[in-house]
Amino acid sequence: MKVLAVLYNGFKAAIEEPRLLGTVENKLGMDRWLASRGHEFVVTSSKDGPKSDFEKHIVDAEVLITTPFHPGYLTRELMEKAKNLKICITAGVGSDHIDLNAAVDHKIQVLEVSGSNVTSVAEHAVMSMLLLVRNFVPAHEMIERGDWQVSDIARNAFDIEGKTIGTIGAGRIGYRIMQRLLPFNPKELLYYDYHEIHPEAESAVNCNRVGTVEELVSQCDIVTVNCPLHEGTRGMINDHLLSTFKPGAWLVNTARGAICDEHAVARALASGQLRGYAGDVWNVQPAPKDHPWRSMKNPLGGGNGMVPHYSGTTLDAQARYAAGTKSILQNYLDGKPQAHQNVIVGTGKYETTSYGIH
Amino acid sequence: MKVLAVLYNGFKAAIEEPRLLGTVENKLGMDRWLASRGHEFVVTSSKDGPKSDFEKHIVDAEVLITTPFHPGYLTRELMEKAKNLKICITAGVGSDHIDLNAAVDHKIQVLEVSGSNVTSVAEHAVMSMLLLVRNFVPAHEMIERGDWQVSDIARNAFDIEGKTIGTIGAGRIGYRIMQRLLPFNPKELLYYDYHEIHPEAESAVNCNRVGTVEELVSQCDIVTVNCPLHEGTRGMINDHLLSTFKPGAWLVNTARGAICDEHAVARALASGQLRGYAGDVWNVQPAPKDHPWRSMKNPLGGGNGMVPHYSGTTLDAQARYAAGTKSILQNYLDGKPQAHQNVIVGTGKYETTSYGIH
Repeated sequence: MKVLAVLYNGFKAAIEEPRLLGTVENKLGMDRWLASRGHEFVVTSSKDGPKSDFEKHIVDAEVLITTPFHPGYLTRELMEKAKNLKICITAGVGSDHIDLNAAVDHKIQVLEVSGSNVTSVAEHAVMSMLLLVRNFVPAHEMIERGDWQVSDIARNAFDIEGKTIGTIGAGRIGYRIMQRLLPFNPKELLYYDYHEIHPEAESAVNCNRVGTVEELVSQCDIVTVNCPLHEGTRGMINDHLLSTFKPGAWLVNTARGAICDEHAVARALASGQLRGYAGDVWNVQPAPKDHPWRSMKNPLGGGNGMVPHYSGTTLDAQARYAAGTKSILQNYLDGKPQAHQNVIVGTGKYETTSYGIH
Repeated sequence: MKVLAVLYNGFKAAIEEPRLLGTVENKLGMDRWLASRGHEFVVTSSKDGPKSDFEKHIVDAEVLITTPFHPGYLTRELMEKAKNLKICITAGVGSDHIDLNAAVDHKIQVLEVSGSNVTSVAEHAVMSMLLLVRNFVPAHEMIERGDWQVSDIARNAFDIEGKTIGTIGAGRIGYRIMQRLLPFNPKELLYYDYHEIHPEAESAVNCNRVGTVEELVSQCDIVTVNCPLHEGTRGMINDHLLSTFKPGAWLVNTARGAICDEHAVARALASGQLRGYAGDVWNVQPAPKDHPWRSMKNPLGGGNGMVPHYSGTTLDAQARYAAGTKSILQNYLDGKPQAHQNVIVGTGKYETTSYGIH
C-alpha cells in the first residue's frame, strides 16, 4: 500500500529541531512505523503542476496526507486519476484544499485531526487583535530603525478593554477566542453562526448571537473570522461587506485567506475603512512575492499584522497533529471506527455540517 | 501660581488627533481650565540639562506634572532649587523618575493616577508574551521581505497553553495579567511579592506564591516583571539571576527598564539562555540610537519585542490619566483630601509600600 504525504520542507531547521514533525525531513514521525508494517511511504513538498511528485504519486496512492500550511490541492480532476485513493487525512484542521463534493462522489473519505491545533489558532487570533489594536508593528519598527516618537505610535493605539468584538463562526476556535477575551472586559462579545451555542456555553462567555453577518460587522470594533472555507464563505468579505463595517474597525482572519477578497481588504485598509488586518492565511500558499497583503498599510503606515501560515503548526501543535494523524491512519489500517469528530466526509456522504449544510 | 508640565511632543500627530491629550500640544486638556482659575501653565518637552525649560521653570513652580513616557528626572539637587514646589503629579503610574526619599525630606507630596493605565499595561504584557512565545516578529518580517519558509518560524514557535508563567510583583498590573492569562490554560501561575494576595483573589486566578525571586524564575517558562523601580529592584535582573532562569525562557518587562541590567539581558538573549525579551521600558528614555535592546536577538535571529514606552499611553489610557491628573490638581487647589490610593509621598512621609518598605 502506498501512503503519500505532502508536507513543507524544513531544511536545516528540521535537522536541528526534531520536534518539527510536520516537515518532509521528519515525516510526521511515522517513517519507521509505516515501514515496519510493510507500507510504502512517499513524502514530498513538490505539489504544484503535472510534473510534481504529488500528481505523479497520487495515481496509485491509497492514503493521502496533507496539511493546511503547504496544501496539496486535491481537485476533482486529480481525484479522477487517483484510482486507488480511499482516504485523505489532513494533518491539522481545515480540509478546504480538497474538493469535498468530489470526494463524496468518489467515495473517498476525508478526515482531519479535529481539535489538534484549535488552541494554537485561538491564541494567534487573540495575539493578532492585541497587536493591531495596540499598534505594535509600527512601534517595533520604530525601535529597530533607531527612532523614538511616542505620539506617532500612541495616536493609533487603543486598549482591547471596552471594545465590541465579534466572531464569524463560533465553533471550536471561535469559542476559545471568546473564552480568552472575556477577562479583557470587552464591551460586548458577539457571534454569528448557523449553529447556536449551547445556552450554558453562551452564558459562560457572556456572548450574544446576531442573525446575520452584516448585523455583526456593523456593530463591532474588532471582527474575527473563524469559519471554514466552503462555497458559502468563499469571498464573503468583499467590498460590499467591508463598507458595512464600523469605520476604522480591525479585522483578524486566521481561518482561510479566500474567505476575504484580497483586493477589497487591501483597498479597505488603504482607505482607513479598516484600521488593521492580521492573520496567517492567504488565498494561495505560499503567497506570491507581490501579494498585496504583504505590504498593504493603513493611512498612518501601520495596521498590517500578516505572517505566513503557521499559527496551527507551533511545535506544541505539531506534536498533537502528528499523533492524531497516526491514530487516524492506524484506525484505517486496522479497520477500526474513527472518532466521529474527525470525519468530514465518510464513504459517500458528508458527516459534518462544518463545511456548509448539504 | 505656576504649574509646570513636562510632556512629550506630539507634533503633527497631536494636531491631527486631539485625543493625544498627554502631549505638549494638547496639554492634558487643562489649558483653559487652569487659565480660567488664573494660574500660569508652562508645558514643555525640554527636560534634560541646566538649559532645559524643566530646570529653568522648576525654580518657582508650585506644581510639577510629569509622565513616565518622557520623564522629567526630579533629582534631590533639583528639588533643593525648587523653593516653591509643593506637589508632583505623575500623569500615569510609576514615579521612580522622582527622588522619593528627597521628596519626603523636602515635604513635597508625590501623587500618581493609580489605576489609570494598569489595564493598558496588562494588555501590553499579555500581548508581548504571546508574540514572543508564538515567534511573531520574525514571521512578520519574513512576509515583509517577500519570503515564505514556515519551518524557520515554526521551529521556535510555541503555545502559551501549558506553560508555567510567573510575575515578579502581583499588584494592580501583575494581578490583571494573571486574570487575563487564566483562560489560556497555563500549567501554573506563580507570583513573588512581599504583599500576599488576598486568598479569595488568589484562588480566583488559581495562582501560587513563591518565597523568593530565584524560586520563581527557576520554575517559569515565562517571567513578567510588574514591580515598581526602587532601591530594592534596581538592577535586580542581572547576570546572576538570569543564569538561574530555565534555559530558553521568555522575559517580559513593562515595569521599568532599570530593573534589568541592559547588558546582562542582551547577553542572555544572544546566548539563548533567554529565548525572547519584550517590553516598552528602557533605563534611559528616549533610548539612545545605539541601545543594545534595539537590535539584540536570540541565536535564531528573533526574540526581540521591544517598542518605545507607550503601553500606558494608548488613547484610551490618555483619557483616563488626563482626567485623573485634573482631579488630583483640583483637590490640591481646593484643599480637598486626595484619594488614598493615589498618594505615594504625603507631606514628609511615604503613604505606600509600593516603592519599598521604609
